[in-house]
Amino acid sequence: MFAVTILGNNSAVPAFDRHPTSQVVTLDGTNYLVDCGEGTQIQLIRYKIRRSRISHIFISHLHGDHYFGLVGLISTLSLLGHQQVLHVFGPSPLREIIEMQLKVADTQLCFPLHIHHITGPSVLLDNEKLTVKCFPVNHRVECYGFAFQEKKQLRKLLPEKAREYEIPSVFYDRLTKGEDYLRKDGLLVKNELVTLPGEPGRSYAFCADTRYDESLIPHVAGFDMIYHETTYLDNFRDRAELRFHSTTRQAASLAQKAGVKKLLIGHFSSKYDTLEEFETEAREIFPDTEIAREGVCYEI
Amino acid sequence: MFAVTILGNNSAVPAFDRHPTSQVVTLDGTNYLVDCGEGTQIQLIRYKIRRSRISHIFISHLHGDHYFGLVGLISTLSLLGHQQVLHVFGPSPLREIIEMQLKVADTQLCFPLHIHHITGPSVLLDNEKLTVKCFPVNHRVECYGFAFQEKKQLRKLLPEKAREYEIPSVFYDRLTKGEDYLRKDGLLVKNELVTLPGEPGRSYAFCADTRYDESLIPHVAGFDMIYHETTYLDNFRDRAELRFHSTTRQAASLAQKAGVKKLLIGHFSSKYDTLEEFETEAREIFPDTEIAREGVCYEI
Repeated sequence: MFAVTILGNNSAVPAFDRHPTSQVVTLDGTNYLVDCGEGTQIQLIRYKIRRSRISHIFISHLHGDHYFGLVGLISTLSLLGHQQVLHVFGPSPLREIIEMQLKVADTQLCFPLHIHHITGPSVLLDNEKLTVKCFPVNHRVECYGFAFQEKKQLRKLLPEKAREYEIPSVFYDRLTKGEDYLRKDGLLVKNELVTLPGEPGRSYAFCADTRYDESLIPHVAGFDMIYHETTYLDNFRDRAELRFHSTTRQAASLAQKAGVKKLLIGHFSSKYDTLEEFETEAREIFPDTEIAREGVCYEI
Repeated sequence: MFAVTILGNNSAVPAFDRHPTSQVVTLDGTNYLVDCGEGTQIQLIRYKIRRSRISHIFISHLHGDHYFGLVGLISTLSLLGHQQVLHVFGPSPLREIIEMQLKVADTQLCFPLHIHHITGPSVLLDNEKLTVKCFPVNHRVECYGFAFQEKKQLRKLLPEKAREYEIPSVFYDRLTKGEDYLRKDGLLVKNELVTLPGEPGRSYAFCADTRYDESLIPHVAGFDMIYHETTYLDNFRDRAELRFHSTTRQAASLAQKAGVKKLLIGHFSSKYDTLEEFETEAREIFPDTEIAREGVCYEI
């Protein structure tokens, strides 16, 4: 399963049982945490997401509502005897902030913690299942979005065709990876003759805190799902601009222009006690919009 | 009213909807926050305690479960347009930790923040209603308890007696403060003739994270109420000792030896999903023991 679960959908000031930003991208049992506002570790318990399955944490920027829960989560993992390596990515000086607090508490972590500073657009993770890239967004401080792209799946073997061309079954694994087969009699069996294309990899992007900015489009074009902030409704365009945030219609326009399949909206201002109007406004421009509700798992 | 409301009664790892340490001491509408574990600002909302009424915050020590919520609370107060001075007391380098995070976020606070480093036992606050002193406790890192002592109340005027001695009513305020009155005819009216003693000031002490240590007794002797941690039940005495924590019977013994009126116990290990046994064990030694339950306001 490839999905994202929302832990916090509010902007900086917690209100109406809405929490600061955090979400978990899950792919085949591994949890990738995106942002870690205060209380994220408590939200993880509330929604029964296994903390021990978190291998990577991506921090978009160093406004507190996006990372004040990080040092607490790291401390708790250590108290729970976590063993696996934990990689954290975020802008400088995230490492110094975390290390200072661990040192003051005389905390010796029982697992290897690697904090990597992001300095520009780059590939942060590239394993056999997934690539994670970061891209700059338009906010008051250095801030990054994260694009999750599942690797293209293996090609589908056509066993009858493979037998017809007398390919030994020991070579089938390599066929699913796209290789051609050279027979002993000199005949080259092109891969397309014995396999079908695999499913394309799915894709999800977290666009962080940002003004409306079309320079984001190339980074998320055609994605299956993107999350874009909508701190304000459309009538607060000016305030959004001033505070480096976006409105419903701006997020929806970006999704439309980028040709994505689905839009999740979040980072709601504490001005709003209900959220339905966010959905209504965004759907006028981009019908496949959904409110990122806390505790809900959205399949990608 | 002089009371303490519990916001978090658990030890470091949050569990069973119990939160890290924080409590609010309230005297006549002013809130004094004691410790500020992660999520304290959310607990304040949950229990409808006005953040804007917090004038002083006392941090016992720099283990994360006692202060990771501080920078978030400060940031939120600023976003809410808080105006009043906020005084924070805690061990070094609390100021540097907070200032670094505010600076990185490019946060300009809209209220004056004074972070005072505690360096030993001292009087932290002395206003017309209250004195707050700190005293060292026995923990793995530098750690302080806090003793709240209400000022002795004004003496009670006996109006008939005052009239009998022909004291003008304009002097009555000074009588309640204990002054004698010198009449024009040279007669000195001793204060005790026209007033009764006021109620003694009430007292509460937060004993922070600590091993059993009788050196705490002089700081809390005879207090109306103390909070003492009981991370473990009695059968985990060895672990408590090793980790610089206390058990039920140890907290109860300290309360008994200090001759306090009431004992609140808290800072429960996440090993325990229920708390009743803590009360049972402590009451065997000190009957006036209560579990510090989150959201409950205990009048002092």
